[in-house]
Amino acid sequence: MSEPRIVIIGGVAAGPKTAARARRLAPNADITIIEKDRYISYAGCGMPFYLAGSVRGFEHLFTTSYGVARDETYFMREKGVKVLTGNEAVEIDRAGKEVVSKNISTGEVSRIPYDRLVIATGSTPFTPPLKGIDLKGVFRLNNPADAKMIKERIDDVSEAVVIGAGLIGMEAADALREKNIFVTVVELKDQILPGLLDRDMAAVMGLRLEEQGIEFRLGQKVMKIEGDGEGKVSAVVTGEETLDAQMVILAVGVKPNIDIAQKAGLKIGQTGAIEVNQQLQTSDPDIFAVGDCVENLHLVSGRKVYIPMATYANRHGRVAGDNATGRKSIFKGVLGTSVMKVLNWTAGKTGLGEQQARELGFKVVAVVNSALDRTHYHPSHGLVIMKMIVDQETRKILGAQGIGPGEVSKRIDVVATAIHFGATVDDLADVDLGYAPPFSSPIDLAHHTANIVRNKIEGLAPSLTAEEMKAKLDSGEDFVIVDVRTPQQFAPKHIEDDRVMQVTLGDIRERLDEIPKDKEIVLLCAMGVRSYEALRILHGAGFKDLKYMEGGLQAWPYDLD
Amino acid sequence: MSEPRIVIIGGVAAGPKTAARARRLAPNADITIIEKDRYISYAGCGMPFYLAGSVRGFEHLFTTSYGVARDETYFMREKGVKVLTGNEAVEIDRAGKEVVSKNISTGEVSRIPYDRLVIATGSTPFTPPLKGIDLKGVFRLNNPADAKMIKERIDDVSEAVVIGAGLIGMEAADALREKNIFVTVVELKDQILPGLLDRDMAAVMGLRLEEQGIEFRLGQKVMKIEGDGEGKVSAVVTGEETLDAQMVILAVGVKPNIDIAQKAGLKIGQTGAIEVNQQLQTSDPDIFAVGDCVENLHLVSGRKVYIPMATYANRHGRVAGDNATGRKSIFKGVLGTSVMKVLNWTAGKTGLGEQQARELGFKVVAVVNSALDRTHYHPSHGLVIMKMIVDQETRKILGAQGIGPGEVSKRIDVVATAIHFGATVDDLADVDLGYAPPFSSPIDLAHHTANIVRNKIEGLAPSLTAEEMKAKLDSGEDFVIVDVRTPQQFAPKHIEDDRVMQVTLGDIRERLDEIPKDKEIVLLCAMGVRSYEALRILHGAGFKDLKYMEGGLQAWPYDLD
Repeated sequence: MSEPRIVIIGGVAAGPKTAARARRLAPNADITIIEKDRYISYAGCGMPFYLAGSVRGFEHLFTTSYGVARDETYFMREKGVKVLTGNEAVEIDRAGKEVVSKNISTGEVSRIPYDRLVIATGSTPFTPPLKGIDLKGVFRLNNPADAKMIKERIDDVSEAVVIGAGLIGMEAADALREKNIFVTVVELKDQILPGLLDRDMAAVMGLRLEEQGIEFRLGQKVMKIEGDGEGKVSAVVTGEETLDAQMVILAVGVKPNIDIAQKAGLKIGQTGAIEVNQQLQTSDPDIFAVGDCVENLHLVSGRKVYIPMATYANRHGRVAGDNATGRKSIFKGVLGTSVMKVLNWTAGKTGLGEQQARELGFKVVAVVNSALDRTHYHPSHGLVIMKMIVDQETRKILGAQGIGPGEVSKRIDVVATAIHFGATVDDLADVDLGYAPPFSSPIDLAHHTANIVRNKIEGLAPSLTAEEMKAKLDSGEDFVIVDVRTPQQFAPKHIEDDRVMQVTLGDIRERLDEIPKDKEIVLLCAMGVRSYEALRILHGAGFKDLKYMEGGLQAWPYDLD
Repeated sequence: MSEPRIVIIGGVAAGPKTAARARRLAPNADITIIEKDRYISYAGCGMPFYLAGSVRGFEHLFTTSYGVARDETYFMREKGVKVLTGNEAVEIDRAGKEVVSKNISTGEVSRIPYDRLVIATGSTPFTPPLKGIDLKGVFRLNNPADAKMIKERIDDVSEAVVIGAGLIGMEAADALREKNIFVTVVELKDQILPGLLDRDMAAVMGLRLEEQGIEFRLGQKVMKIEGDGEGKVSAVVTGEETLDAQMVILAVGVKPNIDIAQKAGLKIGQTGAIEVNQQLQTSDPDIFAVGDCVENLHLVSGRKVYIPMATYANRHGRVAGDNATGRKSIFKGVLGTSVMKVLNWTAGKTGLGEQQARELGFKVVAVVNSALDRTHYHPSHGLVIMKMIVDQETRKILGAQGIGPGEVSKRIDVVATAIHFGATVDDLADVDLGYAPPFSSPIDLAHHTANIVRNKIEGLAPSLTAEEMKAKLDSGEDFVIVDVRTPQQFAPKHIEDDRVMQVTLGDIRERLDEIPKDKEIVLLCAMGVRSYEALRILHGAGFKDLKYMEGGLQAWPYDLD
């Protein structure tokens, strides 16, 4: 075969990337992108930053890093790729190897022949069947047109409601908050960022964001959206209350655009997205599918998952570009790694969450570690709370999460890399990470977290979580909390309860007699370091029923007195 | 055996860490640290930041993250560890299992029995045999006393010379520059950061630092240091010039403190440091050695290396603490990962350098990639130039380096983790790294660099380095450079030479006739992205002798017109 005719349906991320790679490999291939929208190859992930004003111009979402607009002309002149915007692919004729395409403005239908077809149809936000959904001021944040409409209104808004506390919802809330809008996020689940964080981590992050002025309504269902006499949104009504709002952003998730694939008889996976093999081939070997419309293999669980992400779209594009031009590249799968920023806090995760891991049958050891992202004497240090989820039998790392104002993304990427290679906690502790005071600690927090897991597995560090301790307190259990911080640290903020005693770590060897030997003792401090040290001292002194609270008060998601 | 008596010689980093870990495992062990200095457990790596003023108080170098001074009292009260400061271990009696220790102020000698001994004697800076080395104002930067003396003088200095452009020298230069002192760094080798960066990377970084006011004198030997009539330093004389200076900092490297080990007949390795096995045992199984006085196994080369670093010292401490109390932990080895910051540029490396890799017999493919550390539309994006060194036969990554104002340390840690597990470039490209606009690009620069290596190995991207192109230009070779940036980008800064032509990438398909088909063509742009694209277009158009310049003009370490 001479160089193939390649047709790509979809011009946002995975499609253009496929086209660019294919072109570099096959200089004479005939490559056509069909895109129903007028915008192509745009930075979808940049939209919240455009709203917040940190991306100054709308056009910056559409230019290359070297300042050239990524439009039809750019694709023709720099890439030699024909882009048909305003054209909708309505049908795939697999037998005839043609795509039926309709010009949206003229209605004209054409048939475009292909040797290889690439489906990159992306995803569409769910639109919940709510009363008032069509009011003025109710938006989704899916494409540049949405972003532009929101931006045009944003200066007239003083209160906004975001429906959905997932990635997009939280990024939208961040952008609105940056514009000094009072934001309330309503979420049906009982935590923020349900796809990203375990509930304990989400609780800590939520508390810190609330301190910075984002309100959350968790576990609440939106019943309807109300409008004023002019058809403009005025409030969101949940099962429990009415929230005034001049703007509502719907961010309740997305679904893969599979219609054209389904109609063509291509296999749809159990997740509801298009099924592909590692070469990103659909059930028709001449048709590939990439980006938000396909499912991926999760490398830890071994299950198919639907996790639409820009990075997969782009990396798919390279693989499909290879394969559509006769190479044999594979896309191994995903770990669900993601990272995001809201106000001054970052949240990131890779691999499995604790609950997921348990449901898959792993014998899980999980730890929460509060640590600084660099040496404490360096002025720009910040807190990171890291959770690590490990299989006790193989000691393999199954997942990790990080939250905090400190540098989270590096540690998540390091753990993601380790998980990719099937690392145990012992392996991770052995990796030679770069140290200098502006970047890390001599023992990096990723190492430190792995070491805490090792200590826990080996029985050196029996522990409980903040949630477990709260439950013990609330249920009236008879136990003693020993807060080993200094009196100066204890006085302003501590757990106010008769069962709490303060004994500074440095004094504990002299005050052993004051601590009851016949009760369960929970050691507590700010980060979990001193309390672990205290636990080892008490253990050495013959105390039997000892635990320390993981992550210390930094990981305590409840109010303190 | 009941819990052992553990004696540790050295109280800076590895020693205290060993003691702390041992104590947590063996609550009743008798643990003693012998330290000849008055300072213990200090943040040696923090000294440059103290000089620069970003670490405010001297005492911050000696406190825990929770604000407690790490002195003898702290070690006794929190760790239950006895610290004998001002005591020098002068001899090890291996037969009698005793350390002979001398009180430096009283001269009193005592014999301290041990079951397990840990040598953590650290390193000492080389002091070159130079005339004038004892003048007032000539310092080393080895311990807190040095830092204190420098800090006391620093406000009276307007010109300083740093001798040695290694890590410590560069960090010292950074600190002096922060204090608005005119700094010249003299280095015997022909590049800055010789242990960290390959020469090409060092040249780019050096140029950028010179633009910010640090002067370099490379390949120059210091002949003597001159003083004024009052015994104060006034100038440094190199083989080529005299540099005025009211302060001189010597930073020509360190050597391991092995005297006591050598005298005791313990095996010294070929690197000149104490030889240990993976359990950090010396040739005497009851004696361990940790930190700056030992050699490590390099995990890529398989050779023993002497790379003294704070992170190894601390990680050694955990392993030695385990083993000294009867566990069996191992320290696998190192990759020589390091990272450092000078002014607004970061430099990092892991694994082997290009030259090292060639000398070890690898068939090396190396690439240099200029890229942004996050999406270009995000306001805080920064440049990173990354070099990757790969074994062409196995496709395994041997090493990587990064420099730039952007986020280098994450990518170095990611590659270090990959190398730890023997990753190929293909593996690295498959790792699921976290993406969001504030943190990375959809295809992270670590992925991108790996992809460039793959393209190069597969013959898609024939290239030359800046150094090679400069040599071609200087030798008068007949070839053509096609700069594919826009005229607006070309005009202000370009290589001024008759062999350079400007053809904007978007115009190249129309202007093929202007480009000579019979000559070698080198494509050039700002970062290496457009020039690679242009190369593929020309290749498709039948051009034969094509290369692009790796990293583009961002990686060009010479002046531009």
